[in-house]
Amino acid sequence: MLDYDPATCAIGGAVAILGDRPTFLVLREAFMGVRRFGDMLRRTAMPRQVLADRLAHLVAEGLLRKAAYRDAGQRTRHEYRLTAKGLDLYPVLVALMQWGDRYAAGSAGAPILLTHRDCGEPVTLGLVCGARHELDSARDVTPLPGPGARKIA
Amino acid sequence: MLDYDPATCAIGGAVAILGDRPTFLVLREAFMGVRRFGDMLRRTAMPRQVLADRLAHLVAEGLLRKAAYRDAGQRTRHEYRLTAKGLDLYPVLVALMQWGDRYAAGSAGAPILLTHRDCGEPVTLGLVCGARHELDSARDVTPLPGPGARKIA
Repeated sequence: MLDYDPATCAIGGAVAILGDRPTFLVLREAFMGVRRFGDMLRRTAMPRQVLADRLAHLVAEGLLRKAAYRDAGQRTRHEYRLTAKGLDLYPVLVALMQWGDRYAAGSAGAPILLTHRDCGEPVTLGLVCGARHELDSARDVTPLPGPGARKIA
Repeated sequence: MLDYDPATCAIGGAVAILGDRPTFLVLREAFMGVRRFGDMLRRTAMPRQVLADRLAHLVAEGLLRKAAYRDAGQRTRHEYRLTAKGLDLYPVLVALMQWGDRYAAGSAGAPILLTHRDCGEPVTLGLVCGARHELDSARDVTPLPGPGARKIA
């Protein structure tokens, strides 16, 4: 058991920002290219105020940014685009998708396949070390205290 | 924008099981090797009933299993161990940690370093395709409908 102060944990910090199920669903939609409030509302089926709250939260945290657009004959509206900070969450979403495909998908199989844009081959997420070894599981990893670790008092 | 029914989404399915912040923190502790109720209570500082609820949920979902132990002179107690289904969540936790190290950690840097048990080199999580190309970002990935996709009505 690693003797570090859990208050410093980067997972705790990340989850404090990402928070709850609606937040993940909004991020999922953003990664799928859904940018408009009305489209997100229809696709996620979450209450309007919940969606508005989560979008405002993600903008405040710098994961999404608002951009103006205007359809012909309409007033100016805003759409939501992922920032660099938001795009860097992609491995989190892919990891959730891979696990979900295995343990939470229906018998029909994976609803979405991720493929490499350049060659079309399926994309997976894997653990690799600095010496290019591929790791199979958590059992192959040794966690060590980093520069930001604090000893438990 | 991918024209699929979000109700089938594996991310939604995964997040429905993983749920909320306390659930992620309990999983984090389990991956750090913390197995006992009292240790988790002290380290996470969450209310006793919240911890008990989340442990029961994770056992019911098959991510943790209870195992009996008995310290000298004490009554039999239970500890919590990750199942194979739980261990397979490791990439999700590592992805959250990597993002948290970058965007949610303090100025002191990463609190925990992950290293390869065999060679000691730092471990990272990356996207790779079937032709062994390493992908840099979400922009290199094309999502396609999989066998479990449903068209939006």
